[in-house]
Amino acid sequence: MTEQAVVQDDAISEVIGALEELLGDRITTSMAVREHHGRGEDYFKPVPSDAVCFPHSTEEVAEIVKLCAAHKVPVIPFGTGTSLEGHVTAPHGGITIDLMQMNNVLEVHPEDMDCRVQAGVTRKQVNEYLRDTGMFFPIDPGADASIGGMAATRASGTNAVRYGTMKENVLGLTVVTADGRIIKTGGRAKKSAAGYDLTRIFVGSEGTLGVITEVHLKLYGIPEKIASAVCQYPSLEEAVNSVILTIQAGVPIARIELLDSLMMERSIAYSDLKGYEAKPTLFYEFHGTEAGVEEQAQLVREIADDFGGSAFQWTVDTEERNHLWQARHDAYYAGIAAEPTKLGMSTDVCVPISRLAECILATEQDTKGSGFDCPIVGHVGDGNFHVLFMLDPDDEDEVRRVKDCNRRIVERAIAMGGTCTGEHGVGVGKMDYLEDEHGEAVELMRTLKRAFDPENIMNPGKMVRI
Amino acid sequence: MTEQAVVQDDAISEVIGALEELLGDRITTSMAVREHHGRGEDYFKPVPSDAVCFPHSTEEVAEIVKLCAAHKVPVIPFGTGTSLEGHVTAPHGGITIDLMQMNNVLEVHPEDMDCRVQAGVTRKQVNEYLRDTGMFFPIDPGADASIGGMAATRASGTNAVRYGTMKENVLGLTVVTADGRIIKTGGRAKKSAAGYDLTRIFVGSEGTLGVITEVHLKLYGIPEKIASAVCQYPSLEEAVNSVILTIQAGVPIARIELLDSLMMERSIAYSDLKGYEAKPTLFYEFHGTEAGVEEQAQLVREIADDFGGSAFQWTVDTEERNHLWQARHDAYYAGIAAEPTKLGMSTDVCVPISRLAECILATEQDTKGSGFDCPIVGHVGDGNFHVLFMLDPDDEDEVRRVKDCNRRIVERAIAMGGTCTGEHGVGVGKMDYLEDEHGEAVELMRTLKRAFDPENIMNPGKMVRI
Repeated sequence: MTEQAVVQDDAISEVIGALEELLGDRITTSMAVREHHGRGEDYFKPVPSDAVCFPHSTEEVAEIVKLCAAHKVPVIPFGTGTSLEGHVTAPHGGITIDLMQMNNVLEVHPEDMDCRVQAGVTRKQVNEYLRDTGMFFPIDPGADASIGGMAATRASGTNAVRYGTMKENVLGLTVVTADGRIIKTGGRAKKSAAGYDLTRIFVGSEGTLGVITEVHLKLYGIPEKIASAVCQYPSLEEAVNSVILTIQAGVPIARIELLDSLMMERSIAYSDLKGYEAKPTLFYEFHGTEAGVEEQAQLVREIADDFGGSAFQWTVDTEERNHLWQARHDAYYAGIAAEPTKLGMSTDVCVPISRLAECILATEQDTKGSGFDCPIVGHVGDGNFHVLFMLDPDDEDEVRRVKDCNRRIVERAIAMGGTCTGEHGVGVGKMDYLEDEHGEAVELMRTLKRAFDPENIMNPGKMVRI
Repeated sequence: MTEQAVVQDDAISEVIGALEELLGDRITTSMAVREHHGRGEDYFKPVPSDAVCFPHSTEEVAEIVKLCAAHKVPVIPFGTGTSLEGHVTAPHGGITIDLMQMNNVLEVHPEDMDCRVQAGVTRKQVNEYLRDTGMFFPIDPGADASIGGMAATRASGTNAVRYGTMKENVLGLTVVTADGRIIKTGGRAKKSAAGYDLTRIFVGSEGTLGVITEVHLKLYGIPEKIASAVCQYPSLEEAVNSVILTIQAGVPIARIELLDSLMMERSIAYSDLKGYEAKPTLFYEFHGTEAGVEEQAQLVREIADDFGGSAFQWTVDTEERNHLWQARHDAYYAGIAAEPTKLGMSTDVCVPISRLAECILATEQDTKGSGFDCPIVGHVGDGNFHVLFMLDPDDEDEVRRVKDCNRRIVERAIAMGGTCTGEHGVGVGKMDYLEDEHGEAVELMRTLKRAFDPENIMNPGKMVRI
């Protein structure tokens, strides 16, 4: 062990000691807790930090970060642990800050349709809280993720095609900076031209610039009418072309989700979906007034007909609709449940809608040609889809073959003007692709990182190579 | 003159010499041209730079910035010169880069509804270019501003209530950084979680971090049906309350603009509007399908009735509609034309919609009580409104009284959770308020500025005090 590593050990012991004084039993070095916090829901091997702490306030987070900063000890923010790109691993050790005990809804302003929550509030919790207000928060990744984690990864989900992503739906943040200051970004006005957009700097920064402790969210009125529908297609190509035409026709659809035949097979089994076949399928949802929804649905039905879609199966009541969408949200779990001895790796490219058919079909051919039988599922209205590889992390050959195939998927998407990640973030898994996608601009990202976190203590080893 | 200033003079002479070699007659030190470039459409006294140059390409901009960087000479980007906050003044001298000869539309992708333009393309030019494609770009500040300038100031306008601001509608940028590198930010995918949001860092950065040379824009399909309407109200309070209820009812209105009675009087005269009285007035626009527009209009009409609004005056044909909206866009010019010996100063606060009536009414009382007779006009659906003061910049007492009143307007808006500027930006005029609004976060803005522009050559003396 080098001298530097010993100093590091000393520093960590000192920080842990001071944190024990500050937090009492809300810090632990138990291996079980550390291992649980050392991985997300992905294929990365757990890399535990040195201790996990559970603050109750922004002020406590600031104290924790100040201590870590003073000793140059890494800080790893943690929400629900549902990251898919190794965001919560601790390759350089350090202190994990689990924000899940900061789970209060702080204010709700029905008259302005916004609310402020602590970072540990989950998306379902927000909507449960809002249940009787006539409002909802639309951003819905598959997992019941924390709002802080969703902001940190610029998450989206099935509603993004209509309501946007966390980028569009965060009005402001409370952030603890890398030196332990507490700042508030943004504001409650619907728009502002007052200064640099610090909110958007932290949204999607993956814990590498600071710790998000509170999030001010934009809310929406629950539509007068919501109707869901399912339509099954003869082929993947016809399903995707149906999506492209729907988007190009300008239908303000709320959700349009693709499940290929293998994904349908797995979701039918996992989520007990009744009345569907294992065929390429689109799940739709329409939001609007009574007349507006009818108008949208009519147009989409005509497009579906043109591509050989089956008759729409309408899900009329709320419970049935919720079951359908829970099944869609559980697609990742349905996929990984099919091969319980393996771990999942979900690709996440996103391309301009005009290139979506070409991209998905080439990807399908590529995976099949490479000997994989992977389900495909996606937020296709945004041009975003996931290929779910299953792998044994100890099988080097399998890992290599999956990574090679994934690299081709990413390169194909970037060549089409797309991105390596639509919503999962870069984390550890996509660091190699950031330069491919952004070229020289990555150097400016490094400049930003170095300025905001000069000692590189904020979630180091993620996103940008320093 | 201090030694430093002499060195500065030498540096500028050297840069101008080198730029003459690079650009030939596309650089000038003519006082007339410099003075024209030394002010916007505001009340600030012109502060000319030392020379104005007219590049034709991003590469030329990069060469200009490299030369300036090498000699630590300030760079002031310039578009149509319609800034309202002194953005184009050159308090530290330097080189103005007029981008208006970079005015090509570079690509249009109808199938993905996006396009890429050079920074000097104006908003009307984009829409003229798109005329036969069935698409349009909605962001519309009063002036026919350049897209580069609009991105730099995070501009919005009458359509923002439905379509958002430049923040939501810029997909990516080409930027020349403070050291003369050319970087591309963002991409053509509808969403991405790949790295820090550099696009949003430069949108609204007011030329203080780099020069925007190309902008990738999101486009929209021209709605099947567009209908405009005008409704006049007995009082300002009733007009504003009608707006608040319309927004809270969730009507997806495309435009809802307020003109108070004085503004109406001036617009009737300036824009030859026929059939209207000098009363508090709302201009509306509805976008959607035939049925959707009818549904929206019906609901809004009922709300207007409740607040004593006159019967809607519909403008059915395109020409009449364009005339109405041109009148709205010309409101600032109508206002300043009424007092030709004075200059205009437009306030620009924006508050949460629930506080709008309170804010506007208190503001009206304040201006009247302070002896001013100012028109009020605004993008009220967003909570954003402008009070147009007219002043003689040489009348110190008048300037002081206007500034005092403006300070109270800003403080009132910030106390209500609002912002000092909804769309005009900070520039020189609102630097004093940035700290009031953002507190400690301004220090982080400084960190960003210092990191991206360590020599403080990019539009120095604007936005953030270094």
